[in-house]
Amino acid sequence: MIILILNCRGFSIHFQLFDWSTRTVLARGDVDRIELGDSFISMEVPGRDPYHLESDCSSFGAAVALILATLTHPLEGPLSRVEQITAVGHRVVHGGERFTSSVPIDGKVIEAVRSVEELAPLHIPPNLAGIEGAMATLPGIPHVAVFDTAFHQAMPLHAYLYPLPWEWYEQHGVRRYGFHGASHCHAARRGAALLGREPALCNLVTIHIGNGISLCAVEGGCSIDTSMGLTPLEGTMMGTRCGSIDPGIPPFMMQEEQLSPRDLDRILNQRSGAAGITGLKLDRSAFLARAIAGDERCLLALEMEAYRLRKHIGGYAAALGRLDAVVFSAASGEGEWLVREKALADMACFGIRLDRERNRTARSVDREERVSADDSPVAVYVIPTDEEMVYAEEVAALLNGQG
Amino acid sequence: MIILILNCRGFSIHFQLFDWSTRTVLARGDVDRIELGDSFISMEVPGRDPYHLESDCSSFGAAVALILATLTHPLEGPLSRVEQITAVGHRVVHGGERFTSSVPIDGKVIEAVRSVEELAPLHIPPNLAGIEGAMATLPGIPHVAVFDTAFHQAMPLHAYLYPLPWEWYEQHGVRRYGFHGASHCHAARRGAALLGREPALCNLVTIHIGNGISLCAVEGGCSIDTSMGLTPLEGTMMGTRCGSIDPGIPPFMMQEEQLSPRDLDRILNQRSGAAGITGLKLDRSAFLARAIAGDERCLLALEMEAYRLRKHIGGYAAALGRLDAVVFSAASGEGEWLVREKALADMACFGIRLDRERNRTARSVDREERVSADDSPVAVYVIPTDEEMVYAEEVAALLNGQG
Repeated sequence: MIILILNCRGFSIHFQLFDWSTRTVLARGDVDRIELGDSFISMEVPGRDPYHLESDCSSFGAAVALILATLTHPLEGPLSRVEQITAVGHRVVHGGERFTSSVPIDGKVIEAVRSVEELAPLHIPPNLAGIEGAMATLPGIPHVAVFDTAFHQAMPLHAYLYPLPWEWYEQHGVRRYGFHGASHCHAARRGAALLGREPALCNLVTIHIGNGISLCAVEGGCSIDTSMGLTPLEGTMMGTRCGSIDPGIPPFMMQEEQLSPRDLDRILNQRSGAAGITGLKLDRSAFLARAIAGDERCLLALEMEAYRLRKHIGGYAAALGRLDAVVFSAASGEGEWLVREKALADMACFGIRLDRERNRTARSVDREERVSADDSPVAVYVIPTDEEMVYAEEVAALLNGQG
Repeated sequence: MIILILNCRGFSIHFQLFDWSTRTVLARGDVDRIELGDSFISMEVPGRDPYHLESDCSSFGAAVALILATLTHPLEGPLSRVEQITAVGHRVVHGGERFTSSVPIDGKVIEAVRSVEELAPLHIPPNLAGIEGAMATLPGIPHVAVFDTAFHQAMPLHAYLYPLPWEWYEQHGVRRYGFHGASHCHAARRGAALLGREPALCNLVTIHIGNGISLCAVEGGCSIDTSMGLTPLEGTMMGTRCGSIDPGIPPFMMQEEQLSPRDLDRILNQRSGAAGITGLKLDRSAFLARAIAGDERCLLALEMEAYRLRKHIGGYAAALGRLDAVVFSAASGEGEWLVREKALADMACFGIRLDRERNRTARSVDREERVSADDSPVAVYVIPTDEEMVYAEEVAALLNGQG
């Protein structure tokens, strides 16, 4: 089974091709500057040199065609024919209140996604353009929508409603939706498996740390709360996003600096978080390296991030009433022992006892590891996952009738 | 020792007169519509009929003079002469980063308070007008400023900084200040006393539930975190205030409904919280009565409020690393057994076991009670306090050299 995953964003598509029988990545890459002119594709096939080609894509349809042509390139492509592709998984950032799991895409699904466009105005148009382009180019095979929000549709009313005017919910859809759903779902399933229990009997906190960071309280296999909300800006501190702040700050700073709603949104999303504290726009590994080297502001940002993770973990333990395991996943959740160590230090009162040595050496990207002490009442796991792998898993499960 | 407490707000002053030798309230009341025309004073003296007088006050100075005339009214007043007053305590809502405790007021204090006016533009001008009016009218006695923010100045950097552009902190003072400081300080002192331990050895979560609601993590007698922030809007859900929400909501709703920063601020402060969910503007007792009677929206608002309290308690337990007691105080914190019961249900994993019977019967306004089970590792206390009583305590402590 060959699965193509497409993650269509503003002006770009990230793609990944899996041979699901062996769970291996056959190729991954990006098309950039779609609709902007000077577009290009870059692709990596394991064991070969990176491939790069400039080729104008005036639409997402053209970009999908370019991806397929590149995947079947006689010299560089991992496939010989497009017909080898069994199914396409599309990452859809927002499913509103309609979708509680991944679904095969048809006209009604497209309509339903279009109806929540205002909740993710930057993401849904490219998501839909990618879907329509791919369905036109690959018409005979299943296309599956994997929603960031679906897993969190199990949240109870008291968790997903905001204490805001009721009309804002009814008329504008203002509620907590949550994101990274497929990733939390995967982490929760694997966490239960490693505990050796039925998911229905496990209470977990799952923590996705990538560019965005979110936490999820998982009770009996269902999301009962998550830190991201209406948008992926809420919750814990991130690389460039502030996470939760005093809601009095936006009107205060808008008046102080004559900011428009759009200016404000941009600053909170792109110039805040660790970037706001350090004044540097670094990727996470560079930022952590500086913190370890003793850079004061980077260390402060790290303390702030770990402290906010810690408070969320405590809050979700309270929401769950009993905690069986904490699961770290996604690239940085796996790779960054220091963040885990700081977030979980002195949490014995919660039954969490990290094994420092295990935690420091657990950085493999392809092994699930327990990093808590053997006698820790609450297990702590590091579970390798990347989002594309989870999307592919969703597609495979749906095709196999286990969706 | 006779202490007069003045709480000067926009267009009104709340006052309370204490005989501190017996800790009794001699009188309490309000002057309303100051500077607006048709102003009036109302006063209650225990054991007498309420007193009401219309009297124009074109300034806070005039209102203070009216309060003093009323307190010494030959028939209605509890005092015979103004000179009986030993000291005046002024509630000051914001002390910026300068004040870590209550202080005797002089010109420099007034200047320092004026310098943070932009952080509380609705509160500081009346606070200062009241101070200046009272110092002019009662020049020979100590005037003491009691700051809402002072107790929280012990918070560490990683707790009080927001993950926002650094310049917002440096140039605009955007950081967590916290409020209800005197109340949390009092609750923490009494909590430690009831535990029979030195405050330095106690880790507590104190919860102030009045019109505003805030929580504080107290480690060794010091505030290390608190739920209100730059403004009293952040944190847990309140009667008309939303508390923490996705910071993506303000720009989203401003664009959806063409709201100005001021409109937004008003909605989040006055039309949100329980009022937003229920569509009703009820005082807490009416709202709780409806919830108990089965009103669906009131019940939902109650669940939402208790759930958010619970998550904050868990978060602060994680911040503290060990929890010795949870303390509820202020009018609703004492009176509302149902909120305590819901917020602390199924928290045995934190070592919190409420005694349901004790909790339900603890509603006295003048007795400190333990409402946790005898074998609960974490004690839960209900500690009667009103803010004016705490302000008076601050004044008395300062005069006695224990400030």
